[in-house]
Amino acid sequence: MLTLTTFRSVPPFAAGYVRDLRVRWALEEAGLPYELRLLDFQDAALPAYRKEQPFSQIPMLQDGDLRLFESGAILLHLAQRCPLLLPQDAHARAQVTVWMFAALNSVEPYLAELVTLNLFHGDEDWAAGARPAAEEMVRKRLRDLDDWLEGRGWLAGEFSAADILMTTVLRLLDGMELVERHDRLRAYRDRCMDRPAFGKALADQLALYGQAPRAA
Amino acid sequence: MLTLTTFRSVPPFAAGYVRDLRVRWALEEAGLPYELRLLDFQDAALPAYRKEQPFSQIPMLQDGDLRLFESGAILLHLAQRCPLLLPQDAHARAQVTVWMFAALNSVEPYLAELVTLNLFHGDEDWAAGARPAAEEMVRKRLRDLDDWLEGRGWLAGEFSAADILMTTVLRLLDGMELVERHDRLRAYRDRCMDRPAFGKALADQLALYGQAPRAA
Repeated sequence: MLTLTTFRSVPPFAAGYVRDLRVRWALEEAGLPYELRLLDFQDAALPAYRKEQPFSQIPMLQDGDLRLFESGAILLHLAQRCPLLLPQDAHARAQVTVWMFAALNSVEPYLAELVTLNLFHGDEDWAAGARPAAEEMVRKRLRDLDDWLEGRGWLAGEFSAADILMTTVLRLLDGMELVERHDRLRAYRDRCMDRPAFGKALADQLALYGQAPRAA
Repeated sequence: MLTLTTFRSVPPFAAGYVRDLRVRWALEEAGLPYELRLLDFQDAALPAYRKEQPFSQIPMLQDGDLRLFESGAILLHLAQRCPLLLPQDAHARAQVTVWMFAALNSVEPYLAELVTLNLFHGDEDWAAGARPAAEEMVRKRLRDLDDWLEGRGWLAGEFSAADILMTTVLRLLDGMELVERHDRLRAYRDRCMDRPAFGKALADQLALYGQAPRAA
């Protein structure tokens, strides 16, 4: 049995955006059933949990006696059992891996920095000064992605685990009208989110946090 | 033959810290010979290079007809041929993968944000306001790592590709006296840097940029 660890409750703004969504989506694509292990937010900082997850983060995935953290590593682990998420051909597999790391190391950090600035420091005097440089990096990455998607339906060949990671990264910008400036990128994100496995994963996360599924 | 793409020249402050170092180090550990392909900085933004590397970044690695970018993906690719970098046992391998993603997604973004703030925005008025929150996240991650290293010589079992990534991430803070506040973490970083393969990789990068090897 697979057991996914996530928070028992989150602030309303986070519902639908908790990082277990990536893992839920991959599990749905792979058709793998799973159980939840719910963690109280304050318990994440306790020594017992930090022995498993040194950064007090979720998600974690338990697969038999294997305990994994880092959403990228969890997706890679799941993808290795599911050719839909990671092709068998070595060449194609390497390209998907490239884009998994690209989502997490070349795109997410800049988007997360901008979102953190707006969400947690928006009222501070210095935030207005910090914003232009943060936004410029985000705009550059979005342009780069939009260019890459010319003539491509997915990041690397067919739909893969890389698209799951990139879509959940792009969703960090929801409501900011930045992705929407790029036609190919917006269409790509929406194509990913139209997948039934994404819809199921999102509805399940929202249900846990007491919210109804959102209209498309 | 393996071909590593990096910049032909970099500003003096970057010599010894260019991200090809991770790949050079892994190649030295694996005993794999390689050639360099040198890219002029301004050519990284040209369409020809962006077709290979959409974010105009280095390093890239060409292995036969396979072209890879993202240092994490390149290390994972190399590690799959070298048990010293990634153990064969599935359980141990998964833990190394966890720590490869942890270095790149849970640690590097915060360290890079602080370094960017100091290096590129240090003279701007808002930087003084932004620094405390950026430093606090870095301190938290360093504390978490220091705690994890209690009773451990390496991040996950034996020395692995995860230690290469984490050491090059920690080196972003060189000169800031932050890693040095944590005895285990400093000793860990120094243990990694004492490896002959690191010394060779660093000397080779410095030589390319016209600098002599540094004294230990």
